[in-house]
Amino acid sequence: MLAPGRSRIGFIGIGVMGAPMAGHALDAGFELAIWARSREKAAPLLERGAAWAASPAELAAGCDAVVTIVGYPADVEDLYLAADGLVASALPGAYLIDMTTSSPALAMRIAEAGAARGIRVLDAPVTGGDVGAREARLSVMAGGAEEDFAAVEPLLRVFGPRVVRQGGPGSGQHAKAANQIAIAASMIGVCESLSYARAAGLDPVRVLESISAGSAGSWSLSNLAPRIIGGDFAPGFFIKHFVKDLGIALASAADLGIELPGADLAARLYRELEAAGFGESGTQALWFHYTGAPEA
Amino acid sequence: MLAPGRSRIGFIGIGVMGAPMAGHALDAGFELAIWARSREKAAPLLERGAAWAASPAELAAGCDAVVTIVGYPADVEDLYLAADGLVASALPGAYLIDMTTSSPALAMRIAEAGAARGIRVLDAPVTGGDVGAREARLSVMAGGAEEDFAAVEPLLRVFGPRVVRQGGPGSGQHAKAANQIAIAASMIGVCESLSYARAAGLDPVRVLESISAGSAGSWSLSNLAPRIIGGDFAPGFFIKHFVKDLGIALASAADLGIELPGADLAARLYRELEAAGFGESGTQALWFHYTGAPEA
Repeated sequence: MLAPGRSRIGFIGIGVMGAPMAGHALDAGFELAIWARSREKAAPLLERGAAWAASPAELAAGCDAVVTIVGYPADVEDLYLAADGLVASALPGAYLIDMTTSSPALAMRIAEAGAARGIRVLDAPVTGGDVGAREARLSVMAGGAEEDFAAVEPLLRVFGPRVVRQGGPGSGQHAKAANQIAIAASMIGVCESLSYARAAGLDPVRVLESISAGSAGSWSLSNLAPRIIGGDFAPGFFIKHFVKDLGIALASAADLGIELPGADLAARLYRELEAAGFGESGTQALWFHYTGAPEA
Repeated sequence: MLAPGRSRIGFIGIGVMGAPMAGHALDAGFELAIWARSREKAAPLLERGAAWAASPAELAAGCDAVVTIVGYPADVEDLYLAADGLVASALPGAYLIDMTTSSPALAMRIAEAGAARGIRVLDAPVTGGDVGAREARLSVMAGGAEEDFAAVEPLLRVFGPRVVRQGGPGSGQHAKAANQIAIAASMIGVCESLSYARAAGLDPVRVLESISAGSAGSWSLSNLAPRIIGGDFAPGFFIKHFVKDLGIALASAADLGIELPGADLAARLYRELEAAGFGESGTQALWFHYTGAPEA
């Protein structure tokens, strides 16, 4: 079992999510090692005592567990399955935990490749965004063998109080897909509700006062509708990332043989917004589909 | 201003919503009169001291305010605009308050017809369902002149603590439409998220544990997803009523010149379910669109 003061954790992906998460691991007393494309980015963590590794292979060879949280499934595939990747380089018995929102099928492939070498692989994507990462309030959805989950749970708990094993390899990614599917429809509901209110000449603040606390209520309505009303389209969560996540979810849904017309609609609208130059806006900029887009 | 002990309130529509609402008016000390198609239905309220009126015209002629909460816009139109209807029969200066979920355009027509006779008309649909009606926790969205709203507010507040004037005549109905539009997408999100989780072989209870408290969270996910998982499709809110409400909202959206593809999708799926015999099921039976319907 991973434990502070005893286990050495490798970390790859020192971004808006990964940097504070790695910091929490350090704070909890885990020994930390880092690899990143640019050493500069790792400097604040290195100053706090993290060790530097020259490559993913070197990192994996020296750690009890490696956590990754990177961009796209292609990045995950390369990092784990390349000839000098994590699976090839990790010590037998080591844990590899991918916290990227990535493809369930890829997570299963990596777990199989790991198993063939005695490496324990888990997928453990999160929700809660950069704020959740900073405040150690992420929800972690893990997929992997029960005993492997039990072994890494003390580490995952430094990222947030809600850490749930969803099932075997890939099931963490599946749960995250289910999460993004629910959000997709929710965003459509918020934007269409506000769009209707606007067309009807209502005061959107009063409408929210009437409807937020009832059966139309949602996190999106309470948190993103006020930003739309205030003209704030800064990213809590980037449209370009949501397009990625919905693409993963819908590809997986197709593999599973199910149709999700609401998620399909959302994915189409978000792809159009990305194509129109709004990839760097927050997901609440779905609003522009309904009101017409300003110049991006 | 309407006041307990001084104002006589007429009530039409003693159904699952109206009956407890009329009871709250009595409890608050308003004098109550009732008309209903069948006197039997009114018996419990008559026993508690309400007076009986032989027709809507007789009711209107003897009351300071009349509250209606009936079925469909056609019922509202007939009740208010018939030759012997409420608008023709009410005393000048009286208040007519339609709390049915009905058409904004019709609400505006009735308000105009009322104004021509010195009758003060308000639309004031509610959310919160039968439970909210029983527990006096409805959210009331009112449309009408500011001074008329101020005058009837003491009555509306016996139905729930959240009473908001949305604007002029019709704007209460517009706000209710915005509410139903948000719910429509929310229900799609819940069903698609659970449908994905099911196809992926996840335990839906664990998925909810991971996603309900985060940015995918909603009233529907917290309250209706557990019913779906438990196989409970009993109506909190009937599909046949939701089909009516979405029909009103989308007709109004078309009048306003806006497109709401998410609400369109939901309306189509719910109409299909109603046609398949699920009109008497709860809105969570949208689930059957995704899993295939059992015999209705």
